[in-house]
Amino acid sequence: MKIVLDAMGSDACPEPEVQAALEATQAFGDELILVGPVEMLKSRLQALPGGAQAQIQIVDAPDIISMEDKGLALALKAKRKGSKTSMAIGMDLVENGQADAFVTAGNTGGAMATAYYRLGTIPGVERPALTALFPVMGGFCTALDIGANPECKPEHLLQFAIMGSVYAEKVRGIKNPRVALISNGEEAGKGNELVKGTYPLLEASGLNFIGNVEGKELFGGQTDVVVMDGFTGNILLKSSEAVAKLLTDLISQEIRNSNSLRAKVGGWLVKPTLKQSLKKNLDPDEIGAAILLGVNGLVYIGHGRSNAHALVSAIRTARQAVEAGLLTALHTAIQERLTSTTILEAV
Amino acid sequence: MKIVLDAMGSDACPEPEVQAALEATQAFGDELILVGPVEMLKSRLQALPGGAQAQIQIVDAPDIISMEDKGLALALKAKRKGSKTSMAIGMDLVENGQADAFVTAGNTGGAMATAYYRLGTIPGVERPALTALFPVMGGFCTALDIGANPECKPEHLLQFAIMGSVYAEKVRGIKNPRVALISNGEEAGKGNELVKGTYPLLEASGLNFIGNVEGKELFGGQTDVVVMDGFTGNILLKSSEAVAKLLTDLISQEIRNSNSLRAKVGGWLVKPTLKQSLKKNLDPDEIGAAILLGVNGLVYIGHGRSNAHALVSAIRTARQAVEAGLLTALHTAIQERLTSTTILEAV
Repeated sequence: MKIVLDAMGSDACPEPEVQAALEATQAFGDELILVGPVEMLKSRLQALPGGAQAQIQIVDAPDIISMEDKGLALALKAKRKGSKTSMAIGMDLVENGQADAFVTAGNTGGAMATAYYRLGTIPGVERPALTALFPVMGGFCTALDIGANPECKPEHLLQFAIMGSVYAEKVRGIKNPRVALISNGEEAGKGNELVKGTYPLLEASGLNFIGNVEGKELFGGQTDVVVMDGFTGNILLKSSEAVAKLLTDLISQEIRNSNSLRAKVGGWLVKPTLKQSLKKNLDPDEIGAAILLGVNGLVYIGHGRSNAHALVSAIRTARQAVEAGLLTALHTAIQERLTSTTILEAV
Repeated sequence: MKIVLDAMGSDACPEPEVQAALEATQAFGDELILVGPVEMLKSRLQALPGGAQAQIQIVDAPDIISMEDKGLALALKAKRKGSKTSMAIGMDLVENGQADAFVTAGNTGGAMATAYYRLGTIPGVERPALTALFPVMGGFCTALDIGANPECKPEHLLQFAIMGSVYAEKVRGIKNPRVALISNGEEAGKGNELVKGTYPLLEASGLNFIGNVEGKELFGGQTDVVVMDGFTGNILLKSSEAVAKLLTDLISQEIRNSNSLRAKVGGWLVKPTLKQSLKKNLDPDEIGAAILLGVNGLVYIGHGRSNAHALVSAIRTARQAVEAGLLTALHTAIQERLTSTTILEAV
């Protein structure tokens, strides 16, 4: 197995990437490809203990997509045949079969555009969806779209549901995953036009569709997959993180400002356990990156703030998807489900 | 000042309502109107200590809107001239000037429909918006719409922004409140079609519009008012509550299951402070109800699970709005802001 890591993605690149590449080869035992300016990467790598002997292949990419790139200039960098950005060259390696998956902590829009133009989409998928794991009671919920498509149609959400279900089954190991729509009310018929239009498509899809859910059911762990447009999903993801931060900040503040010795002593005693619990349950670095489901290749996009630990997690996550045969399973499911839904609609 | 309380709203009605009416008259010193089946309410009230002497006027309403009412039947109950539901009769008292505000913990859709038909809207407002206070770092953010309108147009969001700003200024006492749009990205130009269409209207509105915010800024306390469609707002509200619950559940679980004596002792010591902190900062019962901004009268809608404490909080909140002259201020602001925005658009 061979994973390509974009060396020029994160805000602090290439340090975290070079470090992560080294740790990943040591942890997983496979060769890894690092893509970026070859001379610079070589010297950075050799400066690290064990770097000179590491099973790391460096592929040269002199150009980068920065966090500031956007609009037409970005689209051109993503699409152009001879593009020499680390994303373009890295994804071309996936496209021509020299690598199994691509991982970056770079510009999300740039990674999505590069993937769309260079890998294309799985036949039947109109819009790739950015897919995250939300921490919920008892585990994780596969959530999509968390931001690739602010505006969606019901058919897009059907495609997301099929892909999310395959992901939950193949990579997360959940048999017959429960699939839900998030809505402003659990009852069928509640929702905006998009949800109302998607509901019958999911009912007819053959997926294990459990209907609409609200926050309570979602974070209570009552569904394995949740589907929504990228505007809603992005707000949901970022707000959940912000509420968790608000709550932990409020708690620390209350203990710090408390006049009660009891509270202060209790806070000091309980702190390591709380920290560990929050890290275990809620730390996005443990997952490392979101997968862009629907492009014809495995692409993981991590946060710009990713450190080496988060990047190693992302590589681990990508390896699991390769091992599970995710891409082939997605092709098959999209073909089967979309066909059966279309037939049902026609009846 | 006279507040009307719907005696037949909450899931456990009329016990919490009768209790709350008694407590509110004792706490605030004004007469209060309780609306519902007169004989039943009289006997329930007299059974309470101090109930016989309470400054409570009971207005008869033999019919109710239940939590099960919906669709056309609900619309008819809400609209019909001779309707004898406690909501219809209570809001008619507000409409004809015999009372200053209406409070219910009943069917949200029923209360919204009854208010819409019986009070009408403030001239210039097309859609009333359900408005809540989100707990954020350092205080509260006035958030609308949290569920009245799953589908909105930019003009609706402009109207919400004007009303939310007036509410924050008059009732919450915030000078020149900051107004923001929640979106999937802070930069101007990010968002779905609705947000993109609303952005220029808010820029031209004369409000203190600070642009788009994400969850981090919203829950970090960087805006006083946040505006969105009712689908997004409802999901945001319920998911925030669910995340807060998940986090506190995870923490308790971690402490309970911990093998560390230190964590157990610490947890026991710190528990009262945490409980008090969460109650003070995040308990919706402390606010009691959401206001339906945009109807031509003050209408507060609480949760069906409301207890007497939550209902007293709702009455207190309603009294603050009456004292602040909220309704008149809304009329004035809508007229001024909408006119200036329309002129700017025409230029």
